[in-house]
Amino acid sequence: MDTRTGLPVVGMIGGGQLARMTHQAAIALGQSLRVLANDVDESAALVAADVQLGSHTDLAALRTFAKSCDVVTFDHEHVPGEHIRALAAEGHKVFPGADALRYAQDKHQMRRRLSELGAPVPRWAPIATAAELVEFGLPAIVKTARGGYDGRGVFVVNDVEEIIDLLASGAELIVEEKVELRRELAVQVARSPYGQVAVYPVVETVQQDGICVEVLAPAPDLPEDVAIGAQQLAIRIANELGVVGLLAVELFEVAGGGPRTGKQSDPPQGLVINELAMRPHNSGHWTIEGARTSQFEQHLRAVLDYPMGDTSLAAPAVVMVNVLGGPEGGMSIDERLHHLMAAEPGVKVHLYGKQTRPGRKIGHVTALGADLADCRRRAARAAHWLTYGTAPA
Amino acid sequence: MDTRTGLPVVGMIGGGQLARMTHQAAIALGQSLRVLANDVDESAALVAADVQLGSHTDLAALRTFAKSCDVVTFDHEHVPGEHIRALAAEGHKVFPGADALRYAQDKHQMRRRLSELGAPVPRWAPIATAAELVEFGLPAIVKTARGGYDGRGVFVVNDVEEIIDLLASGAELIVEEKVELRRELAVQVARSPYGQVAVYPVVETVQQDGICVEVLAPAPDLPEDVAIGAQQLAIRIANELGVVGLLAVELFEVAGGGPRTGKQSDPPQGLVINELAMRPHNSGHWTIEGARTSQFEQHLRAVLDYPMGDTSLAAPAVVMVNVLGGPEGGMSIDERLHHLMAAEPGVKVHLYGKQTRPGRKIGHVTALGADLADCRRRAARAAHWLTYGTAPA
Repeated sequence: MDTRTGLPVVGMIGGGQLARMTHQAAIALGQSLRVLANDVDESAALVAADVQLGSHTDLAALRTFAKSCDVVTFDHEHVPGEHIRALAAEGHKVFPGADALRYAQDKHQMRRRLSELGAPVPRWAPIATAAELVEFGLPAIVKTARGGYDGRGVFVVNDVEEIIDLLASGAELIVEEKVELRRELAVQVARSPYGQVAVYPVVETVQQDGICVEVLAPAPDLPEDVAIGAQQLAIRIANELGVVGLLAVELFEVAGGGPRTGKQSDPPQGLVINELAMRPHNSGHWTIEGARTSQFEQHLRAVLDYPMGDTSLAAPAVVMVNVLGGPEGGMSIDERLHHLMAAEPGVKVHLYGKQTRPGRKIGHVTALGADLADCRRRAARAAHWLTYGTAPA
Repeated sequence: MDTRTGLPVVGMIGGGQLARMTHQAAIALGQSLRVLANDVDESAALVAADVQLGSHTDLAALRTFAKSCDVVTFDHEHVPGEHIRALAAEGHKVFPGADALRYAQDKHQMRRRLSELGAPVPRWAPIATAAELVEFGLPAIVKTARGGYDGRGVFVVNDVEEIIDLLASGAELIVEEKVELRRELAVQVARSPYGQVAVYPVVETVQQDGICVEVLAPAPDLPEDVAIGAQQLAIRIANELGVVGLLAVELFEVAGGGPRTGKQSDPPQGLVINELAMRPHNSGHWTIEGARTSQFEQHLRAVLDYPMGDTSLAAPAVVMVNVLGGPEGGMSIDERLHHLMAAEPGVKVHLYGKQTRPGRKIGHVTALGADLADCRRRAARAAHWLTYGTAPA
């Protein structure tokens, strides 16, 4: 507890944009997020009052950090599970715990556990050799079990030769069928240590090159029973895996329906699980203005065992578009922001304090309104201004 | 400019809750508010990364502060005008400037200037002696020209004897007629150095003992022509006084109409100006969730000469209730917060990181929805939980 305020101190390991936006949410709750960052220039370190510099792989640094926090949580999934167990064994509250987080850290464990639970997943197998891959069947998706995110560590393979080096590297791999997907969806649920859950509306996530570029909330034209099924699935996974904090379940909506287990707990036809993330997630940035409780506040509430906040939509349509760094040179980011504000006075801007590099995620924009198409147009225009410094064609 | 981000640095003199909430808004714009605070425990100093400790009356401290900022602005009105002029003379951008801010610092100058502009004000006069007060007529409102806020420095006087000590103190005083007020209203406008203005919907402010306790947005049952007149009046004052940043115009809605000047620029019948504030203001806290652009972001946009943001309402009804510290002892603030969250999962909480003391403003809550009465009930319940740790009767 912060004796100056009488309110708890949440520590977040990692100083990226998720910690930056969690700090904003913490301020409203009377708190100040404590951040473990690698560098003073990281997104959250630039704005938080209480920053410890250190590595998320250094147990001594993690111990020092945890001692000054009531609860420790994560901006990313890269903290070694044994370190998390060590902190927990020493009496620190760390959420999500290592037993849950491993399913977000390791795609092999995740696939195996979800299969055991009868949750819908693509056909998959662990592979170690070219022969196993051929036997599984190509084309297929090969993934490294650990370390991948934002499309890294994921390979669409048509011919074994394409990943011969990867197979030789000794990296643990899994293979998955290439599903015929109609679109991608995501659903977020928060769960507290007490077990209270709060689930957000299902959203559509639009990907390019494996990176989420746009989120539509709520997912348009999604039948209500499918939406409810997806929410129930997310709640069941959060409960079964013992997640505390936010869980994002990334889903494929597949043509003709996904694999069925025949169990009564089957989700509605047509959804299979792609990935899990156990933290605030890009697919939930829309909630800052678009839901009554933002995912960042909800994550704080969850890890603190506070009652959950209302997840209702704040507008009929909400669209979030990620902002990527544009080509080198030309107009400064400050000038681009001027143009965006003049062109789209109602679009909300979130910049992460990052140096602009081509293709780097430097922020996001959110448009709210009554009409989805109008929100998409406005958000896209705003993002285009920030990336290129010009109006879209 | 912050060379790490390519974005400007706004400095705010004063480390109170207004700076705290401005820092939250700055984070979204890719910035980090630089704060001049008296103490490490002040609301904004607890949460901002970039804090200079020093007094707002120490010119040397102000100079050091201004040198590291692109623009300097204020959390309060207590910086001496000569210091602001000194900073401006040295080339620093300070908004609002001293020539505007003096009308928020000095009620005598404010009343005189508004009278010159033909703006509606209560009948008033400067007074120095008991005889002048008697001549003006009692009962009346006596105000110290400088230093009063939140009801301090304002006296309802029925008999000269009541303020004989004040008259003897040498403090500069004005007297005003006690208007028959129906209710109090407020309107906020932001103005940029370029001269762009953006005005918010007119709100009703409910006062107790001279302190704002509740704000209703938009002001219920206000005829549209009166609302537009109030907005036009605020814009005119911002332009005439050369305000840069936010201006809050506090108004009395009076029975039978206010004094009329007969000029074409007369505002609609029934409004007289009470006070002016040139900064984010308690009457605008509702905008954080209740308007598309919060007053804190708008203030940053204005002082940076960015294009203004959309001031539209985010819901048909928005109610903000201030949270005061309750009686000593009993339930901790953290426990009270738990109860509030369980009882009102949709109400937004803003705590300022202040030690709880009876009657001290420690935060505010905001409820949004379709129905004003329902929002008032929910916001009042939430505030009651935070103050007393019990459900309201």
